[in-house]
Amino acid sequence: MHVVRYSQAFIPTLKEAPADAQVASHKLLVRAGFIRQLGAGIYDYLPLAKRSLAKIEAIVREEMDAIGGQEFFLPALHPAEIWKESGRWEVMGDNMFRLKDRKGGDYGLGMTHEEIFTDIARGELRSYRQLPQVWYQIQTKFRDEPRPKSGLLRVRQFTMKDAYSFDVDRAGLDLRYEDQRRAYEKIFTRCGLDFVAVQAHSGSMGGSESSEFMVKTEAGEDLVAACPRCRYAANTETATSRGPVAAARQGTRKDRPEKFPTPGVRTIDDLAAAPYRRPAEQQLKTLVFVADEKPVIAVLRGDDDLHEPKLQSATGATTIRPAHPEEIKALLGALPGSLGAVGVTGTKVLLDEALRGLEGMVTGANEDGFHLEGVSVPRDLGHGTFASLRTVKAGEGCPRCDGTLDVFQALEVGHIFKLGTKYSESLKATVLDKDGKQVPIVMGCYGIGVERILAAAIELHHDDNGIVWPLSIAPFQATVLTLGPEPELKAAAEEIVGALAKAGVDVLFDDRDERAGVKFKDADLVGVPIRIAVGKKGLANGQVEWKLRAGGGVELVPLGEVARKVADKVRSAA
Amino acid sequence: MHVVRYSQAFIPTLKEAPADAQVASHKLLVRAGFIRQLGAGIYDYLPLAKRSLAKIEAIVREEMDAIGGQEFFLPALHPAEIWKESGRWEVMGDNMFRLKDRKGGDYGLGMTHEEIFTDIARGELRSYRQLPQVWYQIQTKFRDEPRPKSGLLRVRQFTMKDAYSFDVDRAGLDLRYEDQRRAYEKIFTRCGLDFVAVQAHSGSMGGSESSEFMVKTEAGEDLVAACPRCRYAANTETATSRGPVAAARQGTRKDRPEKFPTPGVRTIDDLAAAPYRRPAEQQLKTLVFVADEKPVIAVLRGDDDLHEPKLQSATGATTIRPAHPEEIKALLGALPGSLGAVGVTGTKVLLDEALRGLEGMVTGANEDGFHLEGVSVPRDLGHGTFASLRTVKAGEGCPRCDGTLDVFQALEVGHIFKLGTKYSESLKATVLDKDGKQVPIVMGCYGIGVERILAAAIELHHDDNGIVWPLSIAPFQATVLTLGPEPELKAAAEEIVGALAKAGVDVLFDDRDERAGVKFKDADLVGVPIRIAVGKKGLANGQVEWKLRAGGGVELVPLGEVARKVADKVRSAA
Repeated sequence: MHVVRYSQAFIPTLKEAPADAQVASHKLLVRAGFIRQLGAGIYDYLPLAKRSLAKIEAIVREEMDAIGGQEFFLPALHPAEIWKESGRWEVMGDNMFRLKDRKGGDYGLGMTHEEIFTDIARGELRSYRQLPQVWYQIQTKFRDEPRPKSGLLRVRQFTMKDAYSFDVDRAGLDLRYEDQRRAYEKIFTRCGLDFVAVQAHSGSMGGSESSEFMVKTEAGEDLVAACPRCRYAANTETATSRGPVAAARQGTRKDRPEKFPTPGVRTIDDLAAAPYRRPAEQQLKTLVFVADEKPVIAVLRGDDDLHEPKLQSATGATTIRPAHPEEIKALLGALPGSLGAVGVTGTKVLLDEALRGLEGMVTGANEDGFHLEGVSVPRDLGHGTFASLRTVKAGEGCPRCDGTLDVFQALEVGHIFKLGTKYSESLKATVLDKDGKQVPIVMGCYGIGVERILAAAIELHHDDNGIVWPLSIAPFQATVLTLGPEPELKAAAEEIVGALAKAGVDVLFDDRDERAGVKFKDADLVGVPIRIAVGKKGLANGQVEWKLRAGGGVELVPLGEVARKVADKVRSAA
Repeated sequence: MHVVRYSQAFIPTLKEAPADAQVASHKLLVRAGFIRQLGAGIYDYLPLAKRSLAKIEAIVREEMDAIGGQEFFLPALHPAEIWKESGRWEVMGDNMFRLKDRKGGDYGLGMTHEEIFTDIARGELRSYRQLPQVWYQIQTKFRDEPRPKSGLLRVRQFTMKDAYSFDVDRAGLDLRYEDQRRAYEKIFTRCGLDFVAVQAHSGSMGGSESSEFMVKTEAGEDLVAACPRCRYAANTETATSRGPVAAARQGTRKDRPEKFPTPGVRTIDDLAAAPYRRPAEQQLKTLVFVADEKPVIAVLRGDDDLHEPKLQSATGATTIRPAHPEEIKALLGALPGSLGAVGVTGTKVLLDEALRGLEGMVTGANEDGFHLEGVSVPRDLGHGTFASLRTVKAGEGCPRCDGTLDVFQALEVGHIFKLGTKYSESLKATVLDKDGKQVPIVMGCYGIGVERILAAAIELHHDDNGIVWPLSIAPFQATVLTLGPEPELKAAAEEIVGALAKAGVDVLFDDRDERAGVKFKDADLVGVPIRIAVGKKGLANGQVEWKLRAGGGVELVPLGEVARKVADKVRSAA
């Protein structure tokens, strides 16, 4: 139905946003009547949201089909066995919703579909002649997010376009990855998003290379480090830099570490304050983690922050968590606040790259209430292994050129991965190659968060009055309203609506008996891109008012031309 | 993408159907490469199935929109609280998949959405001025079916169109119900289904009136009783008849029931055999059930079968189950085989209508190994209440006219219900009516099983060679293939494919290097409605072969006319 009459439509706009809403998309999706909350991280999509989501899905579908994607629809209910085969039944931990059926069988709710698509591939693909294959679906995913928040940005049930490619070799994977990268650029551009593609960490997906598509917005929870000079861009989970811009002022060297009492000191700041006055940059920060059940010690400069995903990458572990205080006490003999890696044996020690060559440092003595001073990293921590562990900060040097990194908050809307053979090996999905040899299928996977696009578009395009939808994904392309109750205005409006519908335009016809001000306000809040208002004065001259939500003033357009003008505008944006 | 090249498509056809497949749709969906099984009652939809399902969904959407339906998309993950409010958290029992989140909160996977839609209604609807509203969604449902089978016919995850109407009064509900009924007729007709609308039992949905849309097929598990004369049609769950065609030959009357020994008798058949020789129609069948935790006794003629849903309706209970032997022994003092209702007090006794006035009957004496003879229903069972309890049989009289009932197996593809105020009362969804009085919203709900349409279409339309899709829901409308490997054939085929794509036809271009026989076989199995074959001889005369999957021979059509002819055929079926 191209035409919806406001008087009959369910558009429950609100004066106030929910008290807990902080980001613009959350506030506006609720206020403008797009969504309602059913539970923590679980939302009802009302008709306006459904309309916009359907448009986003249609764009995604077109671009996937254009690169040879074939659409599937796979179950959300997954037997545990297949996840056990891939080894991820354990890995997914509490993030996976799990349940038992009436017979006691174990099931998980799908958070992603590598296992299921690979299961189909191993059952049906036999030869390189059947490759490449690009398979996708647009389907509901479930993830037991520990801290749902920000409306549709961090939820427990969401819609994902997930695509998977199957090739006989790496060269094929490279082509498929490139196809997806280009399709993603088209999709996000068509949906009205400014974005940047960045290097990323592969997380529990495994694989060798991955890129995230990021929208720069403070509503995002990712941090991206980007060089304005050379276009280097990476999630701070993996970003590196040319090291601290301000090199550490080193402390006093000593022949050997010397112990001194530090009663009550628990933090870097405690030791930086009087009476100790050891600047954070002269301290070593010692952290204990448990990686795949084995303890590991990470050491960074006191003024740096650990980036946990980097530590995970450096250990190669599947799971990682901070050690509990009792585990730390058992391992090092002291509690956090007095920890150090000097003299530690039998436990893996990882040193951040920024520590190379530092002298005269202060660190915990592994004795509660005592620290060591005069520590030399080369001399006293020679048993450690260097790795990139710290979080990159704005103003640091670009690792690729002599530019300076910018760091900004961003929202991930898509993620593409070169998986390689991780899943085809664990699930035994092989084909015969040209030489008749059985080889594991080389896979890629490619995800887009459909609601993320919706929310990101709002974060980028809104003002104090409401949403400013890009034409491509607006619930309605145009709204038609009358400036007064006169029957001739209504008749003219009906005529315009009919002409617009005929031209294939999605129209919201505001036929309510409300003041024009109320209608303008709702149209602005809902964010309809084109507004046509029929008033007495204009109509006397055969004209109606034309206004774009995105800006610009009111323009008078001849009644007979308005439908064509709207249709042209819609076409130009497609 | 209108054109798919077979050489690049994923169409994994099989020579054999799965060993456990019994119904045609199950066999053919697997063999023709539409679905694969992931687990019991859980299926992967491959690209062919996704294409057909998308077409069915588009038809459903159009017809829902045409009657003012507004599309939503609601969560599958439901907090337990809302189901507890409606009282159905208990009622749904093992049929509902249940799970706990990481914080221990209880959730169910949605099997239907009365609760969630009513929750939105109570939050947003305040006045009769906002009514009517017709809300729907096309979404995945979960149901822990105890015995999944028959491919997509009895599954644990499926797609449903569920619509809900909200009115201020019954008169409004009647209009909305009628709208849906007409929309359903259009939907099923457009999808190529022959169907019959029948009176049905409301089950756990509650409400006053409901109709099922049934497709007559032996793959269905419902039984429909229909009168060919007056168009009376009802699910045997609710169907009534003018009583047994053969009236019971009554047994010997006595002044009072007399006990006689029947050692070893456990069943109606035991008592009908030597040495007792009491025909089943002269026996009373006494059954004990537990309805909402209270025992209830049902009595039928020995040659009739109880229809449990009728018993449930008669008791008005929310849940009903057969009593356990120990419960029966405690209640009546005997085990099944010797039960009777004569002289029973303190327990509700329901008598089937067919028992009215019967004399000289035999029943259990409530003493193991003994029965009573000479039982008079009016005299000895006067404490019972008459109700329709028996299952209607073919050949019985139509309850509306003097016709004779036909009973056949059928598959339910849709179900519409007048819910009334069941949910609006339990969930407190009220509006102010015209007089300013707070009244519960009057609701209806309307469901269609999307995969059921797919499977029903196959059950109705197939032959030994495969599926015979109706044009409206076929994965491809036409297939184009060459009868030989010659480049000029391929070139002509490409030309036709291009012209078809331009005409908006969905084409499967069989560009494989296979013999024509293989291509014909696959086209028949997949069920593509229109087949265009380009051969050497025909092409020499500027002609190609045209054949319809549904029947008729090969026809020669001029090359330049074939695209128009296909497009015309497609249009004529829309």
